[in-house]
Amino acid sequence: MRIDIITVLPELLKSPFEASILKRAIEANLVEVHFHNLRDYTTDNYKSIDDTQFGGGAGMVMMVEPIDKCISKLKEARNYDEVIYMTPDGETLNQSIANQVSLKENIIILCGHYKGVDQRVRDLFITKEISIGDYVLSGGELGAAVLCDAVIRLIPGVLGNETSALTDSFQDNLLAPPIYTKPRNYKGLEVPEVLLSGHAANIERWREDQAYQRTKDRRPDLLDK
Amino acid sequence: MRIDIITVLPELLKSPFEASILKRAIEANLVEVHFHNLRDYTTDNYKSIDDTQFGGGAGMVMMVEPIDKCISKLKEARNYDEVIYMTPDGETLNQSIANQVSLKENIIILCGHYKGVDQRVRDLFITKEISIGDYVLSGGELGAAVLCDAVIRLIPGVLGNETSALTDSFQDNLLAPPIYTKPRNYKGLEVPEVLLSGHAANIERWREDQAYQRTKDRRPDLLDK
Repeated sequence: MRIDIITVLPELLKSPFEASILKRAIEANLVEVHFHNLRDYTTDNYKSIDDTQFGGGAGMVMMVEPIDKCISKLKEARNYDEVIYMTPDGETLNQSIANQVSLKENIIILCGHYKGVDQRVRDLFITKEISIGDYVLSGGELGAAVLCDAVIRLIPGVLGNETSALTDSFQDNLLAPPIYTKPRNYKGLEVPEVLLSGHAANIERWREDQAYQRTKDRRPDLLDK
Repeated sequence: MRIDIITVLPELLKSPFEASILKRAIEANLVEVHFHNLRDYTTDNYKSIDDTQFGGGAGMVMMVEPIDKCISKLKEARNYDEVIYMTPDGETLNQSIANQVSLKENIIILCGHYKGVDQRVRDLFITKEISIGDYVLSGGELGAAVLCDAVIRLIPGVLGNETSALTDSFQDNLLAPPIYTKPRNYKGLEVPEVLLSGHAANIERWREDQAYQRTKDRRPDLLDK
């Protein structure tokens, strides 16, 4: 899988890709991630990438032309399955979208900034708009990092233990059950007896019950899906 | 506001706090952000912070003791309004939660990693569990960065233009209307006439209509709130 990220702040994105699972996935050549600084595609001496809104109002708007130039150059080199725009009014990311995106070969992720991009960027180039949640961030960069993390860890071979992702929350519309490790007793709080029993079927049943109960208490909406 | 982030991967969190709005807010002393490496609070020679699950199963569990030591040390120095755990089964972050958290004075954010933390960490220390969305990430670090970004930009004085945050998506349960900047015509696509009219009331009405229509098309659930 190849991911091209278009941003005005490539430096903001650096560290999440240089640590932990993303770093390992990149080093193992399971995914390629390329950053493109939008300012390298500007046409004026000021390297302008934004301008004021037509109709007035606070906040700058990212101009269509530098984005067009950057996307067009990428598309000359290869075909892209999706050109994704990170925006709070996009489709809300969930595990099923992450699963779908993880099957793509080449994707472009455009990070919005300031008030967002000129609507014509969306009309002309974007094939998928994704929001990571119902809140506003100062830019699309963290959203892009979140999307990449959610997607890349699903690529076969990235997680050390293949079964690990399958038992995560949401893969079966249930939240994960409580988990415990040593010591057995911590300041008077005991590990549930069943987990120490060695009885695999009972442990499995307890975990299913707990996962169901936790989902019912916290996120009953997931049970209707 | 003071934010203390407890993590096993402080290096992952670096760059988002060294760029853009978070950097400016920190430099202007509008917020203090401190990272605490959980490995500095371990008790054995291997600096272990995790161990296998009781009851078996893939994935490691973060132990209670190093987390206890780190949180206790912080609490000795000052009072905290919230000890937040980033976890996919927490309350889903939205703009209203971001608004509430932005009013706090001191908060701790604990980043989960691997399969998560021993349940007793949650029972003993956590006052609020937050998820940034219905997807699984390799750790709580990106979630913590997202929460900090959503919260810090709401602190008065952080955004250059105070009105800017108020016109964002979600502040009034509506998505933002389309926005345009120069040029008026790009490859045949025109800026809507009304935005060029200079007629403030018409522009305002058009934007309200567009915001409502976009919300109705994309996120009708927001209109019921």
